[in-house]
Amino acid sequence: MSEPPREPGEFELVAAIRDRLRAAGAPERSSSAILGSGDDAAISVDVGARATSVDAVVEGVHFRVPPFDHEQVGRKALAAALSDLAAMGAEASEAYVQLGVPAGLAAEDCLRIAAGLGAVADEHGVVIAGGDLTRSAILFCAVTAVGNAETPEALVRRSGARPGDAVAVTGELGGAAAGLVVLEHAEIAAELEPRVAEELRLRQLEPQPRLEAGLALAGAGARAMIDISDGIGADAGHLAAASDARLELELDLLPVQAGVEAVAGLAGEPASKLIAAGGEDYELLVTLAPDRVEAATDALARLGVALTVIGKVTAGAGVGLRSGDGAAIDPSGFDQLD
Amino acid sequence: MSEPPREPGEFELVAAIRDRLRAAGAPERSSSAILGSGDDAAISVDVGARATSVDAVVEGVHFRVPPFDHEQVGRKALAAALSDLAAMGAEASEAYVQLGVPAGLAAEDCLRIAAGLGAVADEHGVVIAGGDLTRSAILFCAVTAVGNAETPEALVRRSGARPGDAVAVTGELGGAAAGLVVLEHAEIAAELEPRVAEELRLRQLEPQPRLEAGLALAGAGARAMIDISDGIGADAGHLAAASDARLELELDLLPVQAGVEAVAGLAGEPASKLIAAGGEDYELLVTLAPDRVEAATDALARLGVALTVIGKVTAGAGVGLRSGDGAAIDPSGFDQLD
Repeated sequence: MSEPPREPGEFELVAAIRDRLRAAGAPERSSSAILGSGDDAAISVDVGARATSVDAVVEGVHFRVPPFDHEQVGRKALAAALSDLAAMGAEASEAYVQLGVPAGLAAEDCLRIAAGLGAVADEHGVVIAGGDLTRSAILFCAVTAVGNAETPEALVRRSGARPGDAVAVTGELGGAAAGLVVLEHAEIAAELEPRVAEELRLRQLEPQPRLEAGLALAGAGARAMIDISDGIGADAGHLAAASDARLELELDLLPVQAGVEAVAGLAGEPASKLIAAGGEDYELLVTLAPDRVEAATDALARLGVALTVIGKVTAGAGVGLRSGDGAAIDPSGFDQLD
Repeated sequence: MSEPPREPGEFELVAAIRDRLRAAGAPERSSSAILGSGDDAAISVDVGARATSVDAVVEGVHFRVPPFDHEQVGRKALAAALSDLAAMGAEASEAYVQLGVPAGLAAEDCLRIAAGLGAVADEHGVVIAGGDLTRSAILFCAVTAVGNAETPEALVRRSGARPGDAVAVTGELGGAAAGLVVLEHAEIAAELEPRVAEELRLRQLEPQPRLEAGLALAGAGARAMIDISDGIGADAGHLAAASDARLELELDLLPVQAGVEAVAGLAGEPASKLIAAGGEDYELLVTLAPDRVEAATDALARLGVALTVIGKVTAGAGVGLRSGDGAAIDPSGFDQLD
């Protein structure tokens, strides 16, 4: 079927979106992006190798408004796509945005989405080089993110883990899942220290891609890397499968954000559900030769990011998760956790 | 909110989609694409300049099933994105696909979408280099298409038209809009010769991007180019605005697909509505120095594509559309034509 005729004001809206991106500080040019949106396609030139990832946030699946505001919808869409580039050790350069806009959405809310995209673009020096608006019954924002490295070999795949490697994770886990519980259960939020509750909420509403940490880990010799979007159990499984190896992890070593265990207790859930299966923390899971761990830890410390060793790579397949009492948890059950 | 845990079988579905793309003939490697989907991002190297466009088809806006089948949904999504590259005179190389999948959609229907994407990829030598699946309340398919040219200057912008240029259009207009009428009104279809009705239907259901024609026009000296997705009136307006010039077009010169005028008559609509404002024909509107028209026409004839001169570029702004009796049609009214 034909797309309905463009509504009066659609082109004005596109122009206003460009203004809002600019106001949010989004860069308009980079070493690679030389013609931004406004033509049939954006034009770029390349500087070595290129990593390209696609991701989307969809109303009712990845967010609802509220608790998200529209700026946070834009932030989350771009952050999630950039997180994939972080996991490649790529330097993010451009993003292309497809926005699906319900008929009832106010133009100002579209502009708030653009402001959120622009804010994250500004934070990471990413050019929003192209975009398209379409009508849609639900709000969605699909982002294609492009990053660069000097050579294809400088990009870190999921497939490079070798037996003997240390397995490490950036930052802290469980915050995004606990933040969702806090957002949905005021009675649980009320039991927490307000600052802790707010940090958990922001972990869900305003995720941060670990781009600088990903670059630093690539520079420190990361052998395999993946971002934690599905939960560390599932994502460790993806890395293990791609590397044809096994990851042995220790549950008690996983770094946990403040308040996550309290939220789990108040919600009557096992803390491991939030920590290891909650997803959307957008931390990086990395494997390193043991003699590279110290250099990697130091490089991340200079960025203010913690790196925690949580296990090792062995020959075999799948993921083993061992709890503090030494009992092995069935990895297949772990994969199914939730 | 957290994305629901991946459903059992999602990874198997992704693997099956890759198999289906392969079965449809979609190439897996190109001179630029060196690592396809399966990691956090695809890896490419570049060969000169790059054009990137984004487009999406959304259930209830760009298609319904039926009359579309799922293979045609995939075909249309990729064709629409590639059409933007055609309008740049780029050689299409890669595409990245974000598929939004309703819970009720059968896995086999997902694979039919992949088969449609793969078929168009095969026809044009495009690598489906990356993709992502997400749950969504409605079916959508957003495509980021990447093309190449030797230099940025070899890519044809909308902005290069100069007073004195000839304005020309590839192929024939009105078929996609008339095809939609035929699909929705069996009583009108019944009045047409069956072959004519079928060609109109296919024009709507299986649009063809003019990639080879776009390359040939770029090679023949195209000064400005745009694809006709919104209707020639609206798209001529975009080209005029980008070029800071005016396009004077003659309605009677527009090339019309067989059956379009009959459909308009049977539907009680002015034929100009289908021809000039229907959209989705995905033909190319191009401006050329007058001394390049013959070479461009010859180059397209070798591809079996007609090129028709329909007007000229003048100083000024906007689009003038003149009918056979010499009466000027108000361009602003023309822009609003539904």
